[in-house]
Amino acid sequence: MQTYRAPVKEMCFLLETFGFDQLTALERFSAYDMQTVEAMLEQTAAYLTDRLLPLNKVGDEQGLKWDPETGAVTTPDGFKKAYQGLVENGYLGITAPEAFGGGGAPESLGVLIGEMTGACNKSLSMAPGLTRGLVEALIAHGTEAQKDAWLGKLVTGEWTGTMCLTEPQCGTDLGLIRTKAVPVADKEGVYKLSGTKIWITFGEHDLAENIVHLVLARLPEAPEGIKGISCFIVPKVTLDGRKNAIKCVGLEHKMGIHASPTCVMEMEEAEGYMVGVPHKGMRTMFVMMNSARLNVGIEGVALSEIAYQTAFAFAKDRRQSRSLDPAKREEGTAADNILVHPDVRRMLLNVKSTNEGMRALGAWMAILIDLAHHGEGQVKEEAGDLVALLTPVVKSYFTEQGFENISEAMQVCGGAGYTTDWSIEQYMRDERIAMIYEGTNHIQALDLVGRKLPMNGGRPVRVFAARMGEFMASAARDPAMGEFIAPLKEVSEALHAATAIVAERGMQDPEEAAAIASNYLNVFAYCAMAYIWARQAHACINETSAYHRTKVKTARYFMNRVLPKYKGLMPLIEAGKADMMAFDVEELEVA
Amino acid sequence: MQTYRAPVKEMCFLLETFGFDQLTALERFSAYDMQTVEAMLEQTAAYLTDRLLPLNKVGDEQGLKWDPETGAVTTPDGFKKAYQGLVENGYLGITAPEAFGGGGAPESLGVLIGEMTGACNKSLSMAPGLTRGLVEALIAHGTEAQKDAWLGKLVTGEWTGTMCLTEPQCGTDLGLIRTKAVPVADKEGVYKLSGTKIWITFGEHDLAENIVHLVLARLPEAPEGIKGISCFIVPKVTLDGRKNAIKCVGLEHKMGIHASPTCVMEMEEAEGYMVGVPHKGMRTMFVMMNSARLNVGIEGVALSEIAYQTAFAFAKDRRQSRSLDPAKREEGTAADNILVHPDVRRMLLNVKSTNEGMRALGAWMAILIDLAHHGEGQVKEEAGDLVALLTPVVKSYFTEQGFENISEAMQVCGGAGYTTDWSIEQYMRDERIAMIYEGTNHIQALDLVGRKLPMNGGRPVRVFAARMGEFMASAARDPAMGEFIAPLKEVSEALHAATAIVAERGMQDPEEAAAIASNYLNVFAYCAMAYIWARQAHACINETSAYHRTKVKTARYFMNRVLPKYKGLMPLIEAGKADMMAFDVEELEVA
Repeated sequence: MQTYRAPVKEMCFLLETFGFDQLTALERFSAYDMQTVEAMLEQTAAYLTDRLLPLNKVGDEQGLKWDPETGAVTTPDGFKKAYQGLVENGYLGITAPEAFGGGGAPESLGVLIGEMTGACNKSLSMAPGLTRGLVEALIAHGTEAQKDAWLGKLVTGEWTGTMCLTEPQCGTDLGLIRTKAVPVADKEGVYKLSGTKIWITFGEHDLAENIVHLVLARLPEAPEGIKGISCFIVPKVTLDGRKNAIKCVGLEHKMGIHASPTCVMEMEEAEGYMVGVPHKGMRTMFVMMNSARLNVGIEGVALSEIAYQTAFAFAKDRRQSRSLDPAKREEGTAADNILVHPDVRRMLLNVKSTNEGMRALGAWMAILIDLAHHGEGQVKEEAGDLVALLTPVVKSYFTEQGFENISEAMQVCGGAGYTTDWSIEQYMRDERIAMIYEGTNHIQALDLVGRKLPMNGGRPVRVFAARMGEFMASAARDPAMGEFIAPLKEVSEALHAATAIVAERGMQDPEEAAAIASNYLNVFAYCAMAYIWARQAHACINETSAYHRTKVKTARYFMNRVLPKYKGLMPLIEAGKADMMAFDVEELEVA
Repeated sequence: MQTYRAPVKEMCFLLETFGFDQLTALERFSAYDMQTVEAMLEQTAAYLTDRLLPLNKVGDEQGLKWDPETGAVTTPDGFKKAYQGLVENGYLGITAPEAFGGGGAPESLGVLIGEMTGACNKSLSMAPGLTRGLVEALIAHGTEAQKDAWLGKLVTGEWTGTMCLTEPQCGTDLGLIRTKAVPVADKEGVYKLSGTKIWITFGEHDLAENIVHLVLARLPEAPEGIKGISCFIVPKVTLDGRKNAIKCVGLEHKMGIHASPTCVMEMEEAEGYMVGVPHKGMRTMFVMMNSARLNVGIEGVALSEIAYQTAFAFAKDRRQSRSLDPAKREEGTAADNILVHPDVRRMLLNVKSTNEGMRALGAWMAILIDLAHHGEGQVKEEAGDLVALLTPVVKSYFTEQGFENISEAMQVCGGAGYTTDWSIEQYMRDERIAMIYEGTNHIQALDLVGRKLPMNGGRPVRVFAARMGEFMASAARDPAMGEFIAPLKEVSEALHAATAIVAERGMQDPEEAAAIASNYLNVFAYCAMAYIWARQAHACINETSAYHRTKVKTARYFMNRVLPKYKGLMPLIEAGKADMMAFDVEELEVA
């Protein structure tokens, strides 16, 4: 059973609460009043729910077909048609610039639509998700000629994009890349690429006419390590219609996302075109990676949301045991609805309150992305800082909490949740990879600690602290906000103390920072969630509608019953590296 | 890739540390000196690793065949032969009493062998696991004639057992059972049973000649609810060779344990024989359930152990990135082994330290089970108290921590961990059900809070506190133990405070106790783990072997880097029910 209703009302509330009006104040976004936005979201949601959702289980059960002779990959029944519908209806280019044939909508709407797409069919959603990242990378670093040549059909989705980083010997450590790119004599910017790339999502498929790969490789005599990596476009079919020498030589067999081809790609003197400048390929790839990191975080919310809705649908119809409160017992029945039981509520509310918090944090960040692109002066600068700071937090925390939430949703359904009938088990399998790909969650923690904290002289973290401080000072004028401000103040002080530990110890010993980083990222995430929930409570506390009252209750639940868990992480930060580095390697083996 | 070495040395250490000598001091167990025990464990481990482990992935991929005409279920290739080997070599009856053809070994050895069996092939291990539970139930509540008739072939494993509780309308709430048992005229103790049972593990299969179902049903005019449930033996084939009217009418499609048939069983006037007295069937079934609950907890350790060993095998061979400590960089290589990275160690040690703690707690409990059966006076009484108290804690905590550990082991392997090549994803899917079956983990928490705390006037929890107090007083004489005693003291005081909250509030309002129960159980588990680790540290701290030194380091890791998480749960206990009961049902729906 698959049940999903896109949370459009919620999404509109979040846009209104987290500053979408700063975007509509800009000339380019002036048409996006809230009625228009709501209609756009509803219309897109209808297509996704009607057309992509029913294919989700088909995709899981049928999987992909790969032809070893030709390397061709066939997607499950119905995928091609559903994808073509997305192209034909113009859904895929909504947020791309009008100059390249896009709809010119704010990126923040793209993030919300991304959530719906992931919820309805995560496997299928990955093709357009990557394509959007490629479009951003080419806009940022492509030449005018490259933009003209490639962007048009990528924006519409007639062509799709991939990111080709990993090789068998290098995952996290991209400095180890061996794929070679040799310049072609007399052809400026044209190279022949040879090498093997692995974990290439939608590296080969039958959804689109062409596939445009963004590939990291080394020029002859490039410096060793990460400073000798360049970036190339390698198309499946060249612009003059030749089949390029890049082939899918195998598919991975995975726990989930069975309808998303994870390809081993082999290039034998494949034709490629350099993007950006030699040896600085990571600059281009980072544009695509940062886009992908936010998308991956949002996948966590997406699958957690559909899992929640499934669990609630199950619970609403299930009767088991009597309420412990005689007043809540329903006469004339043998058992009460399980929603009377405190622990069923505990599980559902753990999921609901974190889902809504994550969606809010994602929406705020999405608006900041638009401000970083299109704002001016300090607004632009601060938005850029916050986006950089929040990207690793969102990628890591959303994927971990999302996975935990799906497991909790399964638990609500008991044995039924473990069967394929309710699909929660598929959502769990599909979600688990998100903690690993686009930089494992620990890589996100190292990015936060090693790059984002010291970035611009520590400005991002100061901007974040200042936003929290201003909010607390302003909201504290309303006495009803006390119950939300107090825990926010406490966690923000704890984060400040943790940041000091990371900075001080990391300066003297980078291993200390690495040992602390993952727990530090989670304390950061709890603090960001507390901030975003306090802001939501503030927007609702003097409103009287049922919607607003429920929000306040959910905020309260989060503050009292989810947030305190960070207190169990603080001693782990304090403990540092000593206990883990004390072991010799042999001591980790079974005795 | 499947890699497993049974931790036999570890198991022997645990038996020695947690009072196995109290058992060998008994006449009946006097032959079980440590050399004999070690040889038994090694021999069994060799069979399991050679014969059951290679079938684990086969079982997952091939799954089961069910014939709708006959109801027959065919297990995957090789399962029947491997099972028959277990029977023929006498492995299955090792711990059953000699009077019924068993080996008469302590139950504690059965628990350790159970871990190995689960690690090698969880699906296959479930048939003998349930059979052992049935043997215990019949020994406790069967008539002499029933014991003579049924136990012989159940003990050897020539026949297998099942437990038939759940029906479509009743899972947790067994008071809702509808299956009927009508007495057969002129046949004392013989009944005709009709009804449908679901989630019946190994309800039908081809491993054994006969299947003996232990079935809950209602007599005509039985009192309503749980006080009107009686218990029956319903065999697949009657003793005089007639095929009984019980049939498998379907199999569930599940996330994991694909080789373990989860059957829908239909009885149409099937012949059955009452065990125990009318309307008191839960007494018999509880013997089987308690046995199953410990087994299920141990499954968590089993799969977590094989996942750990797999992750360590992967990590040992993987090179990626440079050590942050220049002194640890290996010259002449492009990257260092990933075991130099603090976060890889953090993940592995989280798993290692909790696995070893859980195995130790399980071993202590297993020895207590033997003392509760065969000890005398206060020893017997206290052992029985502790077993009753620890059963829900072990079932719930081991299954949750085990699942989390497998996910952490997967993370160590990055993308490879998500593929089927390394099998960790299978262990994760196979383990997830353990939080649900044999009483969901929240049911365990209610059992702890509602039954076990008040049991015998609160004696079990006083015995547990007294054991901790005596140990702390005695161990504190060694100044080196201070670092272990201090955190144990702190968590035991926190548990004491939490117990007071549960008792006081629960007395006035049972919903408060139910709202707190799950978090309370976890604080209890952290405290029990701290106790068991402090005892291990005490046994090792003045020893000089590499094994003992590693143990002390692992104990330290647990105390400093795992235990503190309970501090994040204390505020949730304090918060009680208010925030979760404040929601109307409609407020839980998507807005």
